[in-house]
Amino acid sequence: MNSTGGLAFTCAELAERLGGTLRNCPGDRAVTEVRPLEEAGERSLSFLANPKYRAKALESPAGVILVDPKSDLGDRPQLVMPNPYWGFARAIGWLHPEPTPEWSLEPVHPTAQVGPGCRLAPGATIGARTVIGAGSVIHPGVHIGEDCVLGEGCELFPGVVLYRRTRLGLRVRLHGNAVLGSDGYGYVLVDGRQEKIPQAGWVELGDDVEIGACTTVDRGVLGPTRIQAGTKIDNQCQIAHNVQIGQHCLIVSQTGISGSTSLGDYVTLAGKVGTAGHIHIGSHSVAAGNSMLGKDVPEGSFVSGYLARPHRQWLECQAALNRLPGILKALKAK
Amino acid sequence: MNSTGGLAFTCAELAERLGGTLRNCPGDRAVTEVRPLEEAGERSLSFLANPKYRAKALESPAGVILVDPKSDLGDRPQLVMPNPYWGFARAIGWLHPEPTPEWSLEPVHPTAQVGPGCRLAPGATIGARTVIGAGSVIHPGVHIGEDCVLGEGCELFPGVVLYRRTRLGLRVRLHGNAVLGSDGYGYVLVDGRQEKIPQAGWVELGDDVEIGACTTVDRGVLGPTRIQAGTKIDNQCQIAHNVQIGQHCLIVSQTGISGSTSLGDYVTLAGKVGTAGHIHIGSHSVAAGNSMLGKDVPEGSFVSGYLARPHRQWLECQAALNRLPGILKALKAK
Amino acid sequence: MNSTGGLAFTCAELAERLGGTLRNCPGDRAVTEVRPLEEAGERSLSFLANPKYRAKALESPAGVILVDPKSDLGDRPQLVMPNPYWGFARAIGWLHPEPTPEWSLEPVHPTAQVGPGCRLAPGATIGARTVIGAGSVIHPGVHIGEDCVLGEGCELFPGVVLYRRTRLGLRVRLHGNAVLGSDGYGYVLVDGRQEKIPQAGWVELGDDVEIGACTTVDRGVLGPTRIQAGTKIDNQCQIAHNVQIGQHCLIVSQTGISGSTSLGDYVTLAGKVGTAGHIHIGSHSVAAGNSMLGKDVPEGSFVSGYLARPHRQWLECQAALNRLPGILKALKAK
Repeated sequence: MNSTGGLAFTCAELAERLGGTLRNCPGDRAVTEVRPLEEAGERSLSFLANPKYRAKALESPAGVILVDPKSDLGDRPQLVMPNPYWGFARAIGWLHPEPTPEWSLEPVHPTAQVGPGCRLAPGATIGARTVIGAGSVIHPGVHIGEDCVLGEGCELFPGVVLYRRTRLGLRVRLHGNAVLGSDGYGYVLVDGRQEKIPQAGWVELGDDVEIGACTTVDRGVLGPTRIQAGTKIDNQCQIAHNVQIGQHCLIVSQTGISGSTSLGDYVTLAGKVGTAGHIHIGSHSVAAGNSMLGKDVPEGSFVSGYLARPHRQWLECQAALNRLPGILKALKAK
Repeated sequence: MNSTGGLAFTCAELAERLGGTLRNCPGDRAVTEVRPLEEAGERSLSFLANPKYRAKALESPAGVILVDPKSDLGDRPQLVMPNPYWGFARAIGWLHPEPTPEWSLEPVHPTAQVGPGCRLAPGATIGARTVIGAGSVIHPGVHIGEDCVLGEGCELFPGVVLYRRTRLGLRVRLHGNAVLGSDGYGYVLVDGRQEKIPQAGWVELGDDVEIGACTTVDRGVLGPTRIQAGTKIDNQCQIAHNVQIGQHCLIVSQTGISGSTSLGDYVTLAGKVGTAGHIHIGSHSVAAGNSMLGKDVPEGSFVSGYLARPHRQWLECQAALNRLPGILKALKAK
Repeated sequence: MNSTGGLAFTCAELAERLGGTLRNCPGDRAVTEVRPLEEAGERSLSFLANPKYRAKALESPAGVILVDPKSDLGDRPQLVMPNPYWGFARAIGWLHPEPTPEWSLEPVHPTAQVGPGCRLAPGATIGARTVIGAGSVIHPGVHIGEDCVLGEGCELFPGVVLYRRTRLGLRVRLHGNAVLGSDGYGYVLVDGRQEKIPQAGWVELGDDVEIGACTTVDRGVLGPTRIQAGTKIDNQCQIAHNVQIGQHCLIVSQTGISGSTSLGDYVTLAGKVGTAGHIHIGSHSVAAGNSMLGKDVPEGSFVSGYLARPHRQWLECQAALNRLPGILKALKAK
């Protein structure tokens, strides 16, 4: 709690806690949430950690923006501090604190709602305020956290874990030991220590999504990691925080998608594909098995290789590479 | 249930449900199972989805074969429809439906049989009709489905999941959170949606197989995914549907084997290896770490690279590649 | 038990069991443990399986050293047998036998100690003699084995598995379905069978370590697999037996570190990195995503590629490779 009587802080309080100073910002302005520049409103704290987003910052209606001393956003309300990214991490912890889990003695919390026709196995646990849609099947050893919502007709196989606030559409199938909603991987190095960026978002799956065994989908830092309707993900895939996957995609086993990367619709990533973070993979694209996508992929592409390039180009490079030792030997012999 | 009084359909019924027409096939012929062309009998429905298997189809004694309008199998009994692969998927669902799970209030189902000298931990669940061999050790949080068979002297570490119908030989060891028998990854695109191909097979492990933590082995589409005696699989490996692995193989961590690929005996796949589907890796072969096997590997080979080639060739290619930038610079300087 | 009245064997007993002969070693000398050459003492059995460690063996004060008939360690006490590596494996089984698990009817074993202010969820199990530090949070479906020690303020999310003897520092966070302490992957081929090398070590994590969902950390063969304070490991990473990771490292998703490899401090391995075993990765090094590290990496390096080389060199090689098909075509046209 704080002086404004809730999960809110005045900008003056934040400046004091972060050891920063306000610029063009009234000290008594209250902020209640942390948001990226493009989603921020007048009650939001946002941040500029990378100068290339300066134009976005100048247009943002955020209540206050964390900036470093070298940046100057003119008349925008600013909180100036040496490491705004670290300020962002701490502000998430203050404005979006993780509640203590509330367990009851019963495996199904008394405040949970289980729809008609559901089958709940022994050994499954369901958290406070969670809603399970009608006709869902929850196998043994499934653990569903608090404030989750499952649509009708879902099936969760043994050992599936849903962290709090996970949202599933209709007829979602999750295979054994899959984990949805675990913390995204985010740290900032401060005084020689990797300080955690709290992960305050959640995971959302559309209708008819299927997720394979031991696949992991991390919650967003802020907002959702989202997988849209009809997409099918195989075993042992890793979907990082704030990834956005379109409809009817096929993501084959042991593929990893890095943070904030987005996929269009009908994308196929064959097995063991990796991607950089913050890239876009256009609709109807295909990446061959084991390829590593380092940059945006235009719609309708077929790419392969490490780093990925158009598939035909990769094949030509490999054919040329196979001839190279012989050519070098022949040259030497001359 | 249907007019033939059981999990059977007449070919006329199937033609009606699938919107197809019969050719050289009596409407009252009953089929009771879906089988690949080479395993089909007179009570089987089979299918021809790829023209390259036409010769197999012409020889198959299947009761009826799904074909597209452009294929003509002469006097073979055929069910003609636009998308036979989709027909195959739907027929699996009708002829091999997944039973509803039958849970009891007790963690060990009353119809399960637990052999003498077994140790069952608190929190483990054992499904209906499952048989646990003498002297087995079942750790906490293990979930064993229905109709499984475990040989004598097995040890299943915490969090292991066996889907229904999994079969383990003698002295099998399964490490924490491994999943056996999850659905294989199979979909067919119909009207813009990824429709599921039901996975009606199971997983079979021979004697003395050991499986690492968080490794996943999918059930076959039809029939088993099989790992033969003495093979040892490390952590976080993915074994896809209908893979067949011989005896005494070593499959090192984070390796993925794609669907229907087969391995001989004494094969070593070092860590992070990937394979294409439907290939054969000959006995006594070795694939180096991180290699990607795109085609058949002859017996006794040592391969590496992406895509994999004979190891010596890969080394020569890499040595030549390392020299290439210097050579191109020198050429430019001339 | 044996003639020396405890978990100890005389060298004469071991020679008889292993079918070997003693050389310069009194038959009544007792050994109580198996240790690597450099850690062995006068009550230790050690072994020389690779001639390159001969100098170490000559300096080792081990009570007895397993050697093959071709090796002669002069006046060192030796047990000569055809396959000393197999002798080593069997001796671990005799001198460091795995105890039978002791489960109680209660989920928390009566001999376990749970510190003040801990929150234990329903469905979690805690093994005999395990100690949970004050203020720790144990989610549903967590399974902690025997003789574990957790520091204060740990949080274990649902489905986490700790094998016996795992040791966690202060404020360790383990995400859903992570597995710590599973058997390392070690076998020796004897008479056509992969015989298991018992894994008698454990896992140790320093303060403030965080481990991602479905990540696996294997116990050492002998001694610990160790991850030092402040290191953060993402989802689906594999840390093999006897790996040593320094402080404040970042190990990103789907990375695999092979057995006995060591990392200094502040090492970053981006996603999907693989490493060979028994190499050292110097402090402050960075490996780019998907790179495969085949040999030692000097301190402060930035490497990438398969196999990894200095990042600039890899980029030059790839740029040259992309030009190669065109150059070969141009040459042909001449």
